[in-house]
Amino acid sequence: MALSPAFLAELERIVGARGVVSTPEGRLAYECDMHTFYKGAPDFVVLPETTPQVLELVRLCRREHVAVVPRGSGTGLIGGAMAPVGGVMVSMTRMNRLLELDFPNRCATVQPGLINLWLSEATREHGYYFAPDPSSQMVSSIGGNASTNAGGPHCLKYGITVNHVLGLELVTGAGEVLQVGGKPQDAPGYDLMGALVGGEGTLGLLTAITVRLLHVPAGVKTLLASFSAIDDASETASAIVGAGIIPAALEMIDETFVRAINEGVGAGYPKGAGAVLLVELDGPEAEIDAQAGRIVQICHDHAALEIRVAKDEAERALLWKGRKEAAGAVGRMSPPGFSRTPWCRAPGCPKSCARCRPSGRVIVSSSPMSFTRATATCIR
Amino acid sequence: MALSPAFLAELERIVGARGVVSTPEGRLAYECDMHTFYKGAPDFVVLPETTPQVLELVRLCRREHVAVVPRGSGTGLIGGAMAPVGGVMVSMTRMNRLLELDFPNRCATVQPGLINLWLSEATREHGYYFAPDPSSQMVSSIGGNASTNAGGPHCLKYGITVNHVLGLELVTGAGEVLQVGGKPQDAPGYDLMGALVGGEGTLGLLTAITVRLLHVPAGVKTLLASFSAIDDASETASAIVGAGIIPAALEMIDETFVRAINEGVGAGYPKGAGAVLLVELDGPEAEIDAQAGRIVQICHDHAALEIRVAKDEAERALLWKGRKEAAGAVGRMSPPGFSRTPWCRAPGCPKSCARCRPSGRVIVSSSPMSFTRATATCIR
Repeated sequence: MALSPAFLAELERIVGARGVVSTPEGRLAYECDMHTFYKGAPDFVVLPETTPQVLELVRLCRREHVAVVPRGSGTGLIGGAMAPVGGVMVSMTRMNRLLELDFPNRCATVQPGLINLWLSEATREHGYYFAPDPSSQMVSSIGGNASTNAGGPHCLKYGITVNHVLGLELVTGAGEVLQVGGKPQDAPGYDLMGALVGGEGTLGLLTAITVRLLHVPAGVKTLLASFSAIDDASETASAIVGAGIIPAALEMIDETFVRAINEGVGAGYPKGAGAVLLVELDGPEAEIDAQAGRIVQICHDHAALEIRVAKDEAERALLWKGRKEAAGAVGRMSPPGFSRTPWCRAPGCPKSCARCRPSGRVIVSSSPMSFTRATATCIR
Repeated sequence: MALSPAFLAELERIVGARGVVSTPEGRLAYECDMHTFYKGAPDFVVLPETTPQVLELVRLCRREHVAVVPRGSGTGLIGGAMAPVGGVMVSMTRMNRLLELDFPNRCATVQPGLINLWLSEATREHGYYFAPDPSSQMVSSIGGNASTNAGGPHCLKYGITVNHVLGLELVTGAGEVLQVGGKPQDAPGYDLMGALVGGEGTLGLLTAITVRLLHVPAGVKTLLASFSAIDDASETASAIVGAGIIPAALEMIDETFVRAINEGVGAGYPKGAGAVLLVELDGPEAEIDAQAGRIVQICHDHAALEIRVAKDEAERALLWKGRKEAAGAVGRMSPPGFSRTPWCRAPGCPKSCARCRPSGRVIVSSSPMSFTRATATCIR
């Protein structure tokens, strides 16, 4: 009965009629993640709310030999959250509850669909936050972060997602609920967390995640240094780490992106710079003041054109807005040197159709992600 | 030909006659690790010097269906480095070369038999060190540390061994050499490091280990606070972490151990204290000064009897000597309340034999390790 009306009825029995997407236009929204190069729409999308529902769904699909693919918020950039052979996609967006906050043990347990930033927002008033901060953190889910072992700018100092996952509940393809790890730092037996975090659903569907919470640092200082040459910026980054300073974040942004960010986000990065370094320090005020002084010196030693220190939270937020929305900003421009005649890639396009004219509407990315170019359609 | 003279000849062909231990008295030294409760001597001990030798040994044993057990320095406390069913023990003590120091990438590659402390000694003059510091670090090997995922006092801030292993070369039981991980922080595919580190040789014999090196911190400050009640010391530890300070190390030592350390090591811990907290801070001077001030305040708030700050490296070393040699120190005493008549446990001992009289020579431990009691022999 795989993929038959009877199968659909079974799905609806498990998650309710409002928990199943089966229309062509509904399924279209699930045909790819942010890496739109690869596409594959599922036959059905289901939106469970509980672990028992996920378990029942997996058991049904196993019995009927139907492929199962989990999906978080779909912001991945490697085409992981799509259904290349159809089947059932299990969207975790309704499993978004914060199950437990345990401050004495500095951890929280969440459902996989909880948005990354929501956890930090729920814990900040208590002095805690969740450290992994992919640029998508205002929309990406913690289940997706864990399934892809997501990184982020602050992972330089604090490590990637796997370093912050303490325990997992997952439904395996065999139709079992497993508990792996937990609040204690260490447990007997093989540590399988490394394989499960980043497993992209191939080893099971994550249904609950226990993550580490960190104390909000006493102070934060954000610097931006501009250089005429990208080599100077690179050498500066190496020299900072070489001096024994591990900044919370240390991001290099090249000329093309600086321009894109200024035009698209209005972050006011230095105009005409060959490269920009964004440096963030956090920790006790005494520590970050000392480190900032040392970093300013290192930047000057490497011919920095300009060094800015964010004076308040608003300035800091603007500097980060530039970095975090860089990918989107690049979509606004057709960077010279990359493609003079951005081409929509539609079959038969003469490379000068209405969509292909640089108009601000054609989306061309200079980044290796190229995540929007392939979706532009030639309307010739 | 398993375990026959022909088998011995094969072993000698691979590692040389001086690389095989086959006498009863020679094998006796390998019958247990520091957890002497469980014993099992191997039929042969081999001491290879290269990965190809390890590979050939494993292939020989596989062909002959002989069990293989790897062994580092034998300082483990859980009975892992013994041969419960006999067979061949592969001692890594001759595979103790430092293969590569790579400071720009902050890592080193070592053979498994390299002593933990030797790596820090080899890198300290360049400003680096290896963070995991089990109390056995002056004798335990990095291969053993990795195989048991060893911890240590400074793992509170810096994480356990798995957090410092970047890559492994191992010989699997199938007789293959595998490379897992490497210098880059992240790689495609499942991350199996968590299972391999701490695998105790069950998944393969480690033959080379690439580990992270950390910068030697700019400053170190070591404090010792004494309390009349262990609850006060516990609350203080929680309050320090609760205040957002993660010390490099934070160790609590109870009354019995304080007495043992003072008598056995002469570390001069405060006499009559119900518990002692040993706190070490590291980082930029400005940071640790600020944190030390806050910690002193927290100790006072929890009725600390006395707070000492190590004035120099000699004082610091003495405070740590107490902690690091605590297990040995306890062996010197028969703690009241644990056993008035320490019993040597030899079969038929009347519990009052010459060895069983509390004499300072009978070794009785109040720790759950009890690692020496079982080896005392009744000489009645």
